[in-house]
Amino acid sequence: MNDETQTRTALLGSSSDAATRVFTTILTRSPISRIDVARITGLSQAAVTKAVTPLVAAGLVNDTLDAKPTGLPGRPVSPVAVVPDAVVALGVKVNIDELVGVATDLTTRIITSDRLPLTSHDPVAVADAIVEMCDRLKGELGGLQPRLASVGVSVSGDVDTETGVVRDSAQMGWRGVELGAALRERLGLRVVVDNDVRALTIGEHWFGVGLGTNSFAIVTIGRGIGSGLHLNGEVVEGAYGVAGEIGHLPLTSPDRICACGRRGCVEAVAATNAIVAAISAAHGRDVSIEEAVDLARAGDAAAIDAFGEAGAVIGRAIASLVNMVGPELVIIGGEGVANFDLFEERLRRAYGEHVFASADRCRIAVRPHTFEDWARGAAATAIRSLVV
Amino acid sequence: MNDETQTRTALLGSSSDAATRVFTTILTRSPISRIDVARITGLSQAAVTKAVTPLVAAGLVNDTLDAKPTGLPGRPVSPVAVVPDAVVALGVKVNIDELVGVATDLTTRIITSDRLPLTSHDPVAVADAIVEMCDRLKGELGGLQPRLASVGVSVSGDVDTETGVVRDSAQMGWRGVELGAALRERLGLRVVVDNDVRALTIGEHWFGVGLGTNSFAIVTIGRGIGSGLHLNGEVVEGAYGVAGEIGHLPLTSPDRICACGRRGCVEAVAATNAIVAAISAAHGRDVSIEEAVDLARAGDAAAIDAFGEAGAVIGRAIASLVNMVGPELVIIGGEGVANFDLFEERLRRAYGEHVFASADRCRIAVRPHTFEDWARGAAATAIRSLVV
Repeated sequence: MNDETQTRTALLGSSSDAATRVFTTILTRSPISRIDVARITGLSQAAVTKAVTPLVAAGLVNDTLDAKPTGLPGRPVSPVAVVPDAVVALGVKVNIDELVGVATDLTTRIITSDRLPLTSHDPVAVADAIVEMCDRLKGELGGLQPRLASVGVSVSGDVDTETGVVRDSAQMGWRGVELGAALRERLGLRVVVDNDVRALTIGEHWFGVGLGTNSFAIVTIGRGIGSGLHLNGEVVEGAYGVAGEIGHLPLTSPDRICACGRRGCVEAVAATNAIVAAISAAHGRDVSIEEAVDLARAGDAAAIDAFGEAGAVIGRAIASLVNMVGPELVIIGGEGVANFDLFEERLRRAYGEHVFASADRCRIAVRPHTFEDWARGAAATAIRSLVV
Repeated sequence: MNDETQTRTALLGSSSDAATRVFTTILTRSPISRIDVARITGLSQAAVTKAVTPLVAAGLVNDTLDAKPTGLPGRPVSPVAVVPDAVVALGVKVNIDELVGVATDLTTRIITSDRLPLTSHDPVAVADAIVEMCDRLKGELGGLQPRLASVGVSVSGDVDTETGVVRDSAQMGWRGVELGAALRERLGLRVVVDNDVRALTIGEHWFGVGLGTNSFAIVTIGRGIGSGLHLNGEVVEGAYGVAGEIGHLPLTSPDRICACGRRGCVEAVAATNAIVAAISAAHGRDVSIEEAVDLARAGDAAAIDAFGEAGAVIGRAIASLVNMVGPELVIIGGEGVANFDLFEERLRRAYGEHVFASADRCRIAVRPHTFEDWARGAAATAIRSLVV
């Protein structure tokens, strides 16, 4: 990080609440007129101008864009816009078998991306791999390298973002892993560790579908079933770091035991492993998820049933989420979306049976997130950490 | 409403976002220093002073309180405080068999209260009764009568607060009842209609337990099972007016049919009627809720089972809520709390079995809300409508 970048991050980190709101409004809606910034933030135009001046001086915001004629008498509206590559961030998504990393600009546009296989889940080995990934991404940044200010890492499970501790990740077999502290020391950069679905939600909130909605939820299906909620203008973090655990709602029979040890969890029926186990049991041999999908597509009754039962419990789970928090939109994502045709009919039927009253106006959209999208979410948490 | 009251409500209604935040901060934390108002709102002290001046001029805020010595050098801190009886509101809770009404000051302190039996659920008859209730409460206000500015009405079910339409209330047998418009015309006052649990949550947020917490949920048990959520500084309203429908999470067997027509809802086992029906079926005769409670307390196995099963499904429902949104605190309220001893053991056991990871640090508190507390929640929605 060079002096210029340090000045920029110091300015963002020390801003008053009003200045923060001004910058996030410009960041997420560029280009935008000062009048609209004032309207959205509820601040006076004088207060907006006061907040914009140091941002322009630091090179974070550009106010020399061409003024657009408004077609109305008076001064033309002169918009302000974020300078996207004023600061660069890295995002790393920790998957069960590989790391996916991206370098992005302030608006989470991907500058470069990379993948690295994980050969061990030992926390030290994973931290080594994350450092290697960051070094590789830095190497691709060229002239932008001095502008690198922060790193976001996202992991499945219960993560304490404040301290950077992964409290419990069933997927990685981790409990109380102090990942943030280890990485901060080795990288010499600000490091944010967050739950992977929450990071994806932060990315969608700041730079994705969340921009046009007041509230939304992301439900991810695949190895795990998770969700991220965005309500009242913020991602729901959970007072104790846990929220969106839709995969552990007890929506199925108590004789279905979940990998977490609890009874009746959604994941006990709908996680990839649970689907594969049900089909393997029916056929008396171990089938892979690829084979399970092929069997279902070929009309195998047991395979169709297993995906259908998973779809039904996911549908009940989404109805539960919608009945509880009433979002405008639910986005279904996650790697399971690749086979969404196998879930869809019973998912939508169960959703329709349980969604309450006018909550059924909530839209359900399916969106295949790539692993790079997940890493981009991790980068979004890194950028957010500079600002709020 | 006299001219003075009109000036006050006009000032509150026309305030900028900054002025609104200043007033709500003073309203909910009086007495408070200007410095603390600035800290909490994120505004400059100059902006706070600018917002306070017209509030003082209108008689809504008092700045002539005794300055308290701070023990530090420099000027003593001079606090500002809301003038509680600057504006008066009414709150009416519509129960299945009676109206409960209160008149309150700006801080929802109850000035007077009353009850009126409901002999019919016909919307016109209920509107008549609400008007009569409001007239009675006004009659008790004496010299404060000219300060009456708004009325809040709360009803169980799916309510569109924007339009004042009760879209669906199973308890009242209403669909699409334009209660707000009817009352506004007859009372000549601002009228807010809201879901009853949401109104209770707004009351707790502004003037109750919500003040000391960043997030909380209220779960009510009794005739219905409902919940209200307060997250990220706001009550969760639901994009389409539905949220907190914990009573319709499909957490029990699909062969239990709910009064709403859906299968497996929490209310199908845990609502008062469901408990009574189970005990009546076991005994081959109709028992009342009072008798059901007596039977359980006397050791009747069927009665103990029915309350216990209700407790277990409520425990699963609260765990689901906590896993999804991670509040700091859950308050259990509602008339069912009077017999909480019959629910408690299995409720807490089921909660413990299903709550996820560190979310189990969420406190569960039981708080008997009186019907006047519910009406006070309705009054809180009326006061809030003047401000935001």
